[in-house]
Formats: sequence, C-alpha cells, structure tokens
Amino acid sequence: MNGRVLIETCEKMVVPKIGIVDTMFARYDMAKDVITVFEEFTGRITYERYTVPGIKDLPVAALKLIEERGCDLVIALGMPGPKTYDKMSAQVASTMIGQCQLMTRKHVIEVFVHEDEGKDDRHLKAIMKDRATKHAYNAIYLLLDPSWLTKRAGQGIRQGHEDAGPVNA
Amino acid sequence: MNGRVLIETCEKMVVPKIGIVDTMFARYDMAKDVITVFEEFTGRITYERYTVPGIKDLPVAALKLIEERGCDLVIALGMPGPKTYDKMSAQVASTMIGQCQLMTRKHVIEVFVHEDEGKDDRHLKAIMKDRATKHAYNAIYLLLDPSWLTKRAGQGIRQGHEDAGPVNA
Amino acid sequence: MNGRVLIETCEKMVVPKIGIVDTMFARYDMAKDVITVFEEFTGRITYERYTVPGIKDLPVAALKLIEERGCDLVIALGMPGPKTYDKMSAQVASTMIGQCQLMTRKHVIEVFVHEDEGKDDRHLKAIMKDRATKHAYNAIYLLLDPSWLTKRAGQGIRQGHEDAGPVNA
Amino acid sequence: MNGRVLIETCEKMVVPKIGIVDTMFARYDMAKDVITVFEEFTGRITYERYTVPGIKDLPVAALKLIEERGCDLVIALGMPGPKTYDKMSAQVASTMIGQCQLMTRKHVIEVFVHEDEGKDDRHLKAIMKDRATKHAYNAIYLLLDPSWLTKRAGQGIRQGHEDAGPVNA
Amino acid sequence: MNGRVLIETCEKMVVPKIGIVDTMFARYDMAKDVITVFEEFTGRITYERYTVPGIKDLPVAALKLIEERGCDLVIALGMPGPKTYDKMSAQVASTMIGQCQLMTRKHVIEVFVHEDEGKDDRHLKAIMKDRATKHAYNAIYLLLDPSWLTKRAGQGIRQGHEDAGPVNA
Repeated sequence: MNGRVLIETCEKMVVPKIGIVDTMFARYDMAKDVITVFEEFTGRITYERYTVPGIKDLPVAALKLIEERGCDLVIALGMPGPKTYDKMSAQVASTMIGQCQLMTRKHVIEVFVHEDEGKDDRHLKAIMKDRATKHAYNAIYLLLDPSWLTKRAGQGIRQGHEDAGPVNA
Repeated sequence: MNGRVLIETCEKMVVPKIGIVDTMFARYDMAKDVITVFEEFTGRITYERYTVPGIKDLPVAALKLIEERGCDLVIALGMPGPKTYDKMSAQVASTMIGQCQLMTRKHVIEVFVHEDEGKDDRHLKAIMKDRATKHAYNAIYLLLDPSWLTKRAGQGIRQGHEDAGPVNA
Repeated sequence: MNGRVLIETCEKMVVPKIGIVDTMFARYDMAKDVITVFEEFTGRITYERYTVPGIKDLPVAALKLIEERGCDLVIALGMPGPKTYDKMSAQVASTMIGQCQLMTRKHVIEVFVHEDEGKDDRHLKAIMKDRATKHAYNAIYLLLDPSWLTKRAGQGIRQGHEDAGPVNA
Repeated sequence: MNGRVLIETCEKMVVPKIGIVDTMFARYDMAKDVITVFEEFTGRITYERYTVPGIKDLPVAALKLIEERGCDLVIALGMPGPKTYDKMSAQVASTMIGQCQLMTRKHVIEVFVHEDEGKDDRHLKAIMKDRATKHAYNAIYLLLDPSWLTKRAGQGIRQGHEDAGPVNA
Repeated sequence: MNGRVLIETCEKMVVPKIGIVDTMFARYDMAKDVITVFEEFTGRITYERYTVPGIKDLPVAALKLIEERGCDLVIALGMPGPKTYDKMSAQVASTMIGQCQLMTRKHVIEVFVHEDEGKDDRHLKAIMKDRATKHAYNAIYLLLDPSWLTKRAGQGIRQGHEDAGPVNA
C-alpha cells in the first residue's frame, strides 16, 4: 500500500463520503437543501453529486457513486409524476434502489416526493424541501451517530410532513 | 484460529444472536416488546438492534446485522402508512427482505403492521404489541426448537389477531 | 471421496429427496396429504419437512432444504389470506420462490390456495387437499418420469379444481 | 479437448439448439405448432422440450434447458387463467423469465396467451396457434438472421393478432 | 496485449459506443431519430443496433450489447400497448432493464412511450419522435459531459412532452 492510498484510506475512515443522485425530471432542486445540511458538517463528511434524466436512472447512478467513487451512503432524490405509469416507474426505481443497497451493503436513502402529494406548487415545494432536509440529517446520523435514530424509534417521525407522533393509547 | 476467535465461534454455536431492525416512522415501539421476550431467554440467545428512518431502509440494515455483526436471524419491525405509496413502499421492503434472506440463507421475520389495520390508536397498538411478541417467540423457536412450529402447522395460527384456527370441516 | 460420502452420493442418485415447506398460518395441514402420496413411493423417494410462520418465510426455508439438506425439489404449501396485504404477501412469496428456483436450478412447486378460493371451510379444505395431492404426484413425476407431464401438455390440467380440459374447437 | 467434444462444439456452432418449455395447465398444445415450424429448419436447428405443471414452473425449466442441456434460446409457452391470482402468477413467471435471460445472456421468448384474450374456445385456439407459430419464426431469425428483425423494427408487428402496422401519420 | 487490442482499447477510451435496442412491436421507428442525433456526433461516439420482437425481449438484448459488443450505454426503445397485460409487460421489462444496469454498472436509458399516451396516431408519433430525440442527447451528455445534466437538475425537464418547468413558488 503506497502513501497516497494509505492517506485516502485513513481519510475515508474518519470522513465518510455521501453521494447525491438527482434528476432533471423533478420540479424542485432538492439537492441544494441536502447540500446546505452537508455544509454544516464540513470536515466531518464529504459529498459528490450525480444527475440523471429520470428516476429509473437513479439506481445505477447510486451504484456507481458507491462502487466507482467510494461513497459510503447515497441520498436518492426524485419526484415521481402523477400518472399511472409514473407510479410504475417509481416502483421500479424503488425496487432497484433496494437491490443496489443489498449489492453494496450501503444505505441508499430514498427521498421521493410524488408530485400529487402537494396541493399546489407551493405545497409541493415545502414538502420537497422538508423531506430532503430531514433525510440529509438522517443520512449523517446513520453514518456518524446511529444511536440518534434508535432514540427516536417507533415515535412516528416523518419527513415532508409534521411528525405523526407515537400512538395515543 | 486464535483463542478469542475460538471462544466467539463456540459461543455462537450455542448462543444464537438475533438482530432487531426497526424504524423511526412506526408509531409504536415494537422493539421493546420483542426485547421483553428475548430477555426471558437470556443465556440462550443474544440480540442487537439497528434503527433506520423507514421501512425501505430495513432490508440493508437486516443484511448488515447478518453479515457484519453475525446475526443468525433478524426480526424486521415496520408500520406501513395507509396511503397508496405507503403500500408500494411496503411491497418493495418485503421484496428486498425476501432477497436478503435468499442472499444470506437466514430467516428475516417480517413484522409489519399496516397503520390502517387498527380501528384507532388503541387497537393499532394492541395489534403491534401482539404481533411483535408472538413473532419474537416464533424467531426463538425457529432457532432453538423448530419442531415447535411443525406441531402447529396448518392450524391457522395468527400474530396481531386471535388465531383463525383450522378449517371447520 | 470416503466410503460414506460415496454411499450417500449413490443413494442420492437413485433416491431423490423432496422437501416440504409449510406454514402455521394455513388453516389446513396440506403436508399430510403430500406425505400420504410420498409414502406410496417409499424406497423411490425420501422427504423432509420444515415449518415456518407464514408464506413470506417459505422461500428461504425452501432454499435451506435444497442447499443445506440436499433436497432435489421442494413443495411449498401456503394459504394466503383474503385481504389486500395478504395478496401482496403472496406476490412477494411467489417472486422469491421463483428466485430460489433460479438460484438452485431446482423446482419449487408452489401449492398456494387463496383462502377466498373456497366458498366455505368445507370447500376450502377440498381445494387444499386436492391441490396438495395432485402437486405431490407432479413433483414425483418431474423427478422420476418427466415424460408423464409432456403427455399431458396443453390439456388444461388443474390442481384444486377439476381439469378444465383442452379447448373445445 | 478430445474428438467428441470437438465435434459437439462444432455442431453447436453451426446448429443452434432451441428449448421449448410448456405447461399441462394450458388448454391448447402450442408446442406442436412450434415444432411444425422447427421441422422446416431441420439441419439448421435442433430442439428439446420440457413440460411443467404451470407457468410459475417455466422459468427454472428454461434455465435448466439452457444450462444443463445446452440450449441457445428457449420458447416459453403458457396460458395464464382469467382470475386475479392467475394474473399475479403470470407476472411472477414473466419476471423470473426475465431474470433467467439476464443470468444466461440468452433469449427466452415468452409466448403467453391470457385465457380471456379469446372470446371463445375457437378464438382462443386461433390466437394461441398464431402467436406460437410467429414466435417460432422470431426465435429462428434471432439465431440465424437477426437483420430480419431490424428490417421490421417499429412496424407494429404482432403475434396472436393481425399486425397493427406503423402509425398512420 | 497485442497491437489490435491496444488500438481497440484506446478507441474505446475516447470514443464511447452506444447500443440501441428496439422492437418490431412498436408502431414507429424511434431508432431512426436516435441515429439522426448520433450522426451529429460522428467521431465522438459510435453505435450499434439490435432489434427484438417485443419489450420483454429488450433487457437481455441490452445486456448482450454491453457485455458481448462493448457498449458503454444503451438506449432501450419500446411502445407498450394499451391493455392491462401490456402494462404488466412494461413493468417486467422496466424491472429487468433496471437489473441489467445494476449488473453492468452501465446506464440503459429507457425510452418507452405507452400507446395510449397519444390521442391519435399523429400525436403518438410526435411523442415518440420527441422522446427518442431528447433521450439520445441525454445519453450523449451522460457519456461526454455529465455536468450538462446537473445544470438542469430539478428543472422539470421532460421528454415526449414540453418541459413542466420548476415549481412556480
């Protein structure tokens, strides 16, 4: 192992790298919100972005970020359209994102907002911003402090909407 | 093989380890009920817990518990929401949990309670508690005494609800 | 190759082993009917049974019977419930049973009876008994005399119901 | 490489082998029509047939024909029934036939006729005969003269029904 | 490494090869539009075409173009029909195209136009032409200048229809 590889290996052990994959299809740039969160953690994580046409192109992009560019986790941002075949595309994309995770043993956090989740453009944007931001934190805690998630287990935590909270019983 | 590895190997042969994966999304902490059962079997099994944001994050978490932390079986706890895309997420999660099992040759017992299975929060909690508890026993018997299950084959055994019982014919 | 392995290898060549996987969830014990058929073929086949909680646990059980216990074919017995998420579970189970077959290059004959196929318990039991019995024969012929099936190709053969017969044209 | 292997290798290079998998469930023997076409090409192709109970048994049979019996392409003949769970079975079978193709890098031409495509038995038989016959030719051209297909690309070619033809615009 | 292999390796590094897979089923020849775009980039990319009967035959054709003929990316052109089982076929084809991408770590850009997306033949042709042309450019930019896509991330870019544009909020 030469010096440079050693340094890269060490850096990697202390500074995980998160991949961001997103699409031209989505009608709001969620990657910006994700990056805003990641910039808070400068020095503790690094990140790399890869944009594809639509959601069915995301899984292999996530795989490439993990295998070819050394990412330890990927955030996959997408906005499925409202029609039946958009829903079918989302199902295929989700299935393959799942497969990518099993192949790599790495988390790929799916941040999908269905266009028809929003009552109007303002609402849609608010959901997308909130979901992307909260999942950016989830990604960081999964890598840096997984106990943060266990403390919140079974508490009805939501992204894109207010927390549902635990059962009232 | 050094001494420590030998000891760990021996322990593993006699004391299986069960993984618990659960989510922040669920509105009730089923892991507590699972752990209550597991504590009854102290010395005969050990366990380890891993919490993720939502159900689509469960399969790779289960895989990591099996491959990276030596679990012999995993219980996957989740509460799919009531909307169509929640159901789609549940389908993807179940498919990938199935794939994880085939990759590892280990059981991953899926304990999913759909939020709309409950008439209200009280009912939902009761289903979740019952299903988690009963599957915790199923997991233990699969590892320690599989004949326990064969004796109950075809008897309409249920988790989360009362047993349906065998056909009345 | 030592003597014992040689003997086991020879036995295996002449006496195939069939696995039976079934569930506690089902409301009728189809394995009994399968075993009744298999007992007719004592000396020509052997069998082994493995019971799991529900249908989504069947695929990895089938895989384990093939890979860890040397089965040449598996019969997978299950009774999906009548609700939408029962149907989703059946779909996942069937997909993974398919995957298991491709991984092992062995047939896993799926004997699923949907609970709502039966008008009442008596009818349900009759379907389950008939389907299990006929598929037990199919399994045996696939192993011992595959030409038996080719002679019946395209003839509208059914299990659980009367044969539909060939097109009347 | 001994003489016999060399001869077999040479034969295989010039005479591709096509597998036929079919079911006892189907109500018409499509394999006969496929074989009629194949007999026209005696000396240029060979074929082998394998019959299974139902469509979910087809994918592993196709895999076995390719891997264990040296087929270069397989035609998979099936007739899904009209009920919802028949459709679910067809979906699983198609998915696994797709998986089989990706595993083997060989085409498996799916010739499925849904029983409810036919208005009556006579119509159903006509569809089955036409689809099987035309796909038998497709299989042969894929192996012997793939440019035949490219000449017909985007022309609305159909099997089982009359050609739809190219867009009228 | 001999001279010819070296030359081929060098060419490949500077001149990526794009595969085109299409069907006889589709009612418009989208490959022509794709090739028109590719001809603009002569010397910077090369391409190869492979035609199959229907969309379920596309995934293995894409895989063969990548693995056996050295393509770096594939465009998969298809037109699913309007009936329920056409939609099922499209879902299987998309899933397997996803699987092909994960196996090869290469993009396979899916250009599917559902026949019922068009109000009439003229509209259908316009959608097919537009979608094929735009995805041909997407394919080229993914290979030659991926930053082109990142500049357009989250902008509601469409193929086959006018751009939806970013959220108006």
